[in-house]
Amino acid sequence: MSNTLSIDGARLWNSLMELGEIGGTEKGGSRRLALTELDHQGRELVCGWMRDAGLTISFDRMGNIFGRRPGRDNSLAPVMTGSHIDTQPSGGKFDGCYGVLAGLEVMRVLKDHAIVTTAPLELAIWTNEEGVRFVPTMMGSGVFSKSIPLDHALAATDANGLTVGDEVKARGFFGDEEPGQHPVGSYYEVHIEQGPVLEANENTIGVVTGVLGQRLMNITVTGQEAHAGPTPMAIRKDALQHSLPLMTEILALGRSHGDSGRATIGQVAVLPGARNTIPGLVKFSVDLRNLDRTVLEEMANKAKMAAAAAQERTGLTFEVDDLQTITPTVFHYANVEMVDAACKSRGYSHQRIVSGAGHDACFISRIAPTSMIFVPCKDGISHNEIEDAAPTDLEAGANVLLDVLLRASA
Amino acid sequence: MSNTLSIDGARLWNSLMELGEIGGTEKGGSRRLALTELDHQGRELVCGWMRDAGLTISFDRMGNIFGRRPGRDNSLAPVMTGSHIDTQPSGGKFDGCYGVLAGLEVMRVLKDHAIVTTAPLELAIWTNEEGVRFVPTMMGSGVFSKSIPLDHALAATDANGLTVGDEVKARGFFGDEEPGQHPVGSYYEVHIEQGPVLEANENTIGVVTGVLGQRLMNITVTGQEAHAGPTPMAIRKDALQHSLPLMTEILALGRSHGDSGRATIGQVAVLPGARNTIPGLVKFSVDLRNLDRTVLEEMANKAKMAAAAAQERTGLTFEVDDLQTITPTVFHYANVEMVDAACKSRGYSHQRIVSGAGHDACFISRIAPTSMIFVPCKDGISHNEIEDAAPTDLEAGANVLLDVLLRASA
Repeated sequence: MSNTLSIDGARLWNSLMELGEIGGTEKGGSRRLALTELDHQGRELVCGWMRDAGLTISFDRMGNIFGRRPGRDNSLAPVMTGSHIDTQPSGGKFDGCYGVLAGLEVMRVLKDHAIVTTAPLELAIWTNEEGVRFVPTMMGSGVFSKSIPLDHALAATDANGLTVGDEVKARGFFGDEEPGQHPVGSYYEVHIEQGPVLEANENTIGVVTGVLGQRLMNITVTGQEAHAGPTPMAIRKDALQHSLPLMTEILALGRSHGDSGRATIGQVAVLPGARNTIPGLVKFSVDLRNLDRTVLEEMANKAKMAAAAAQERTGLTFEVDDLQTITPTVFHYANVEMVDAACKSRGYSHQRIVSGAGHDACFISRIAPTSMIFVPCKDGISHNEIEDAAPTDLEAGANVLLDVLLRASA
Repeated sequence: MSNTLSIDGARLWNSLMELGEIGGTEKGGSRRLALTELDHQGRELVCGWMRDAGLTISFDRMGNIFGRRPGRDNSLAPVMTGSHIDTQPSGGKFDGCYGVLAGLEVMRVLKDHAIVTTAPLELAIWTNEEGVRFVPTMMGSGVFSKSIPLDHALAATDANGLTVGDEVKARGFFGDEEPGQHPVGSYYEVHIEQGPVLEANENTIGVVTGVLGQRLMNITVTGQEAHAGPTPMAIRKDALQHSLPLMTEILALGRSHGDSGRATIGQVAVLPGARNTIPGLVKFSVDLRNLDRTVLEEMANKAKMAAAAAQERTGLTFEVDDLQTITPTVFHYANVEMVDAACKSRGYSHQRIVSGAGHDACFISRIAPTSMIFVPCKDGISHNEIEDAAPTDLEAGANVLLDVLLRASA
């Protein structure tokens, strides 16, 4: 690996801007929902660029796209990079697209310099990462990693009753290959952080050690609705008053369970919601996250025990509904170290970081050693038209990707 | 005053049921909004009963109705009782109507026994107490006590643009008398409690010492909306998390400021209200009540100071909007004592109580010595079709009214 070999930041930026114009929105974002005509146009544009960069294109039955660059020993499993180019309804130009086009830029540089790696390289475009038009999210990588059954994914319907299967075929991306019948030596994905940490710390690169797991719950507190005037404090069964200590305890769990601990109450309904009526019912959401599976479980148990204790203490009813458990992803140690080494070698300011949001890399990490590279995004804002990132940061992230792909395929 | 003279509980109950059928609802309540055709029918029915009981009817320009029973010395200001017969949209049969019909029942008993008091007696029906169709509430007694300007009240419009003035005239209740040009010696009003205290304490009569004042506010807490996953706890500006201690402090004010202290947060909006988004904005209502004007002011000041301290401590913005101040009403000592004495004399279980809700008696207390008599209502429920009260309790309350009216006019 030579630090004299670097990607062309302007070319990367121009490709990002050109792709972003397909489905471009007023405030400078993009709207290209998965498997729509606009997504198709985006895929055609990028596939053309991939062919120009010397890649051989193939599809699997999930509509995942692979651009392959041969190595010296093509019996080796390819070193893969990739991401997605479908967007949120009011999405930005960088979420996903940056990962795909940084990978493309690496391929372009290698072609420019006629470099041949030992193992082959591949650039993947995963179908329907956003999960907006078709649920679940991260569908293409989920099917590829055998985490989501292919039949299940192809049968998913949009609001108009169209299926993923129909739309993959209609767009011409239904390949012969069975998803996952495709070896992966290792996988690296570059992405904007979608959070505020790198910007706050003035670091250029985030060396991603994993993706937080989640425990999602709803808690319902039932007291007794009553008039605010005539009802003395001592005989009230105020569902809000008795929810406050529990909410406080639950939010504190985010601070007392390591750097990766998160606790969020994003939805609160206080009913009946009249100024002069003591609330009889409070419903709130609980979102607990941690990188450590055991600690995450501990947080969830503490939340449930706190609810049970509140019920015991107050005589009101505290009902906890478990909604969803998402297991944490811990990236492969050697891959993380390789990203770290590339940052040091390039002299980029960097830090270890965890991802709070899910990425295709989570699923791929189940079948191949994986890690991710983050770059800052402006004000930590993503899933928004005004999502933005600095060209120099995008260039730096792509250089780190170049280095780790070369090292991994050397 | 003789305990051998008592009201006829069955006659009172039957009158309540008959009036309740005008605008009767499915679940046994009544819907007679102020100055509607149904309210008119109710007024005609009760005025007929008042005439039958020997009362002389007059109206003022506010549509307030007075039924006068002469005394031995008609130069004396009348001893007055009364309440209202307009209802909530889904109102009960007892709120207001009980006060009017208990007064009527007293008049009937006095006629039955040919009793002549020294001072004259009057039964008032106040216009538009509920304030549903026309705002403000307690309009008739408010105008009568010179607390609300007559012009202002007559100009109030309903949703269809009809004015109070037009409707008072259309219903034939627009009298010559200037509201308030009508002396009142003292005033007693009997009412269902509209709260749970008497029932909880198994007491028949509430000797009402006053009506709580109110301070109504809105508090808006502004933090920073952010994604729940990527944003570490340490750099969050979670508007909900930082609202919880303030809400807790405010609710505690209700417990630390005397028996009549009340603190209620009935409305809470947590925005943007997404499960995986840290709330950037929390808005909540504050309703503080107390019988003591100075203490109520102290509660309001403590709430504001707590908000200012939270802003200082957290760096988030805490904005307090004062919405309304309602001054507490403290009833006249001698009147309260007279009600108390009547309960003792009758052997009714009783207790001192404060009213959390406003009543016509609040306004009348500004111009004449006043007190109120409460009876229990089932489960403390009022302003509801299922509002209910026990015939024996209604009878007891009317007997207390009989005793105090006789004593006051003796």
